[in-house]
Amino acid sequence: MITPRTLKGFRDYLPEAMIPRERLIATAQRVYRSYGFAPIDTPALEYLEVLTGKGSDETDRQLYHFQDHGKRDVGLRFDLTVPLARFAAQHVPKLGTPFRRYHIATVWRGENTQRGRYREFMQCDFDTIGTKSIAADIETGLVIHDLMQALGFFEFTIRINNRAILNGLLETLSLQEKSVQVLRALDKLAKIGHEKVIAEMVETAGADAAQAERVLAFAGLQGTNEEILKQLEPLVGASGTGQDGIARLRETLAGIQAAGVAPQRVCLDVSIARGLDYYTGVIFETFLDQLPTIGSVCSGGRYDNLAGLFTKQELPGIGASLGLDRLLAAMEELKMIEPVRTPAPVLVTFFDKQRLHDYVKLAAIVRKAGIGAEVFPDPKRLGQQLKYADGRGFTLALIAGEDEFAANCCQVKDLRTGQSQQVSLADDAADLIGHLQACLANEP
Amino acid sequence: MITPRTLKGFRDYLPEAMIPRERLIATAQRVYRSYGFAPIDTPALEYLEVLTGKGSDETDRQLYHFQDHGKRDVGLRFDLTVPLARFAAQHVPKLGTPFRRYHIATVWRGENTQRGRYREFMQCDFDTIGTKSIAADIETGLVIHDLMQALGFFEFTIRINNRAILNGLLETLSLQEKSVQVLRALDKLAKIGHEKVIAEMVETAGADAAQAERVLAFAGLQGTNEEILKQLEPLVGASGTGQDGIARLRETLAGIQAAGVAPQRVCLDVSIARGLDYYTGVIFETFLDQLPTIGSVCSGGRYDNLAGLFTKQELPGIGASLGLDRLLAAMEELKMIEPVRTPAPVLVTFFDKQRLHDYVKLAAIVRKAGIGAEVFPDPKRLGQQLKYADGRGFTLALIAGEDEFAANCCQVKDLRTGQSQQVSLADDAADLIGHLQACLANEP
Repeated sequence: MITPRTLKGFRDYLPEAMIPRERLIATAQRVYRSYGFAPIDTPALEYLEVLTGKGSDETDRQLYHFQDHGKRDVGLRFDLTVPLARFAAQHVPKLGTPFRRYHIATVWRGENTQRGRYREFMQCDFDTIGTKSIAADIETGLVIHDLMQALGFFEFTIRINNRAILNGLLETLSLQEKSVQVLRALDKLAKIGHEKVIAEMVETAGADAAQAERVLAFAGLQGTNEEILKQLEPLVGASGTGQDGIARLRETLAGIQAAGVAPQRVCLDVSIARGLDYYTGVIFETFLDQLPTIGSVCSGGRYDNLAGLFTKQELPGIGASLGLDRLLAAMEELKMIEPVRTPAPVLVTFFDKQRLHDYVKLAAIVRKAGIGAEVFPDPKRLGQQLKYADGRGFTLALIAGEDEFAANCCQVKDLRTGQSQQVSLADDAADLIGHLQACLANEP
Repeated sequence: MITPRTLKGFRDYLPEAMIPRERLIATAQRVYRSYGFAPIDTPALEYLEVLTGKGSDETDRQLYHFQDHGKRDVGLRFDLTVPLARFAAQHVPKLGTPFRRYHIATVWRGENTQRGRYREFMQCDFDTIGTKSIAADIETGLVIHDLMQALGFFEFTIRINNRAILNGLLETLSLQEKSVQVLRALDKLAKIGHEKVIAEMVETAGADAAQAERVLAFAGLQGTNEEILKQLEPLVGASGTGQDGIARLRETLAGIQAAGVAPQRVCLDVSIARGLDYYTGVIFETFLDQLPTIGSVCSGGRYDNLAGLFTKQELPGIGASLGLDRLLAAMEELKMIEPVRTPAPVLVTFFDKQRLHDYVKLAAIVRKAGIGAEVFPDPKRLGQQLKYADGRGFTLALIAGEDEFAANCCQVKDLRTGQSQQVSLADDAADLIGHLQACLANEP
């Protein structure tokens, strides 16, 4: 006998977890498609050199890799960005630009599970490749906005910034060569506090204390988007990079509003600076107003050259990634997920064992009306069947025995209230369908 | 520079392939859910012992396996049945029965690619665990039927059989201990012909020639379902197993018809005997009437004990698997798939570079009406934008310049016919939305 178990860091998704997960994925697909992003998929296994080409030491260490049957060194993808870079180098010359794709797929990392991380998780990315246009910056923000609303969130904040503005400031301070070190220190502000960030900038970036203070003052700017933009202008001074970043950001914000997004949904926040040197233009992070501490649930930004490791063709782009697992955890905490273990709302009980075909037919009629229905497979005691229905989270149970069939009707039991109602099956069960639709449309 | 390439036997799915693939998956999900099957997922990586526990020599040889960072022997799943067995042993005691799940996920096999096989492919299974009821036999047939129709197939045949009938015949011939050998020979009938099958049965199953002829006569029975059932009765004679199999099959066929399935969709075919000793009751195979040679596109059947390797709890069940890749190949051959590389039907061209926000707003209005729209990101020549729209398979292009904006209208160009029409943008673009909906509803 083999012990049935999953590997550490891996998990089974039971129906209760998988039903909201599939709903979330379907919503993301719908929103991505509505903007013209097309689905792609790439292999889970890639040549190891493809995966380690750009990887950091950390991802290399976490990589699942081995030799395949043909003695090739192969690895399991650890994100969807490296496969996109490889894919773009290989196919974009033929597919043409702009190329907009989404990719929803599993990735693997041999992470330390003690930090509550899983070794297998799903990523949910969308990117626009081959354009530097502000139109793509605006649409990336709009996708994030529509996605959050489609998922049922109405209180969220998309924080936006542009890396060029910080670069502009660093130019005026002659620290542009040290931007990675400055950003790394700045990133720790919430964790280690003002003084230690200053100290780190002095130590690692070679800034003097006044310069470091100026970077922190910059990162601490507050006010309305326009107020912040106005304060930024003198700070970046004559830096063309910085002024260009401000102009792009202003146009991006205006474009997002032109599309109908409420102004409070998008906030300029010069303190966000994700990705160190990966992102080069606009940056997005998305926080739930009711659960800000869970972190950003949708993040991304603009980059200059996606596939430099694989091709000489320069492929600028912009994209973002929905944090599926983080969002599901948030939805659970905010009680946005009903504990349902069945995707069908109606259970047809099996009462009279001579009547199986009648139950099967009844379920078929219900399904034809677009309402999911399961037939309980065995003529067990009714109490046992109703207990099963309750446990699975069915909404309604249909019950019919000799008397009901003789009268061409059935009982509809609302499992939320326990109340039953007798409904006619005449005229292709029109009354039944109407009653089921009414029950399912209403909270009892 | 690293060569961008995929491993042998692996492939990228470009939008043109992925769009119909996602549509097919969504359809399968919808049909499975309508019968109360709930989604689950399991890890791609499992303990090696879980995967090799029941595997044949062939699957063991094809298994991708390695040692993980913790020196555990692990492997990539090669099907969804072994993970289901492990999952059922682990969770069904808590989840209860009947347990109905579907599982749509990738599997990996280091197959010989010269046979046109891929090393990574998707399976699309549904199963009902924990019941021996005929209700589940009937519903499995109904799911297959509804699935095929939902996918757009109206000329298909579900071939049905019950392993108990053949076992009954073998009982009457005292060959029941040799059923695997008999079935293995019978399986080759189409390939090697009558004489060689007889020879193999004599050689491997210890049958005499008369017995082998009787098995072949049995497998060659033809006629309506009822005619075949009538001929089967004397053939299985006093065998309780056989008579029970006939009775179950008769009730299954009647139940499927009671749910409204056209009689010609389900044909009794005593020659199908898939899975050798894995299946124990009803068996299903599904053939496209226009492309029978492509093989069964949805197959499955009933089994006695799913998880015997992992638990003492006996878990009988029934399920089937949709052949996703085979079906997509068939749909392509039958010209059921449009060559579309965008999921959004409308391209908003970018004509006047001062007007970006107006284009973004126009696209937002179109999307709000539920119609997908992409904004071309750069103000390139209109001809170039329309060429892009054609190449991607957009249906309609919106064109607006200074004159149109001054008149509060835009041009809608139907890319299928090349014809343009000017439409008003007044009243929240009500005319535009109506026109777009009309265009998209009609073939030009």
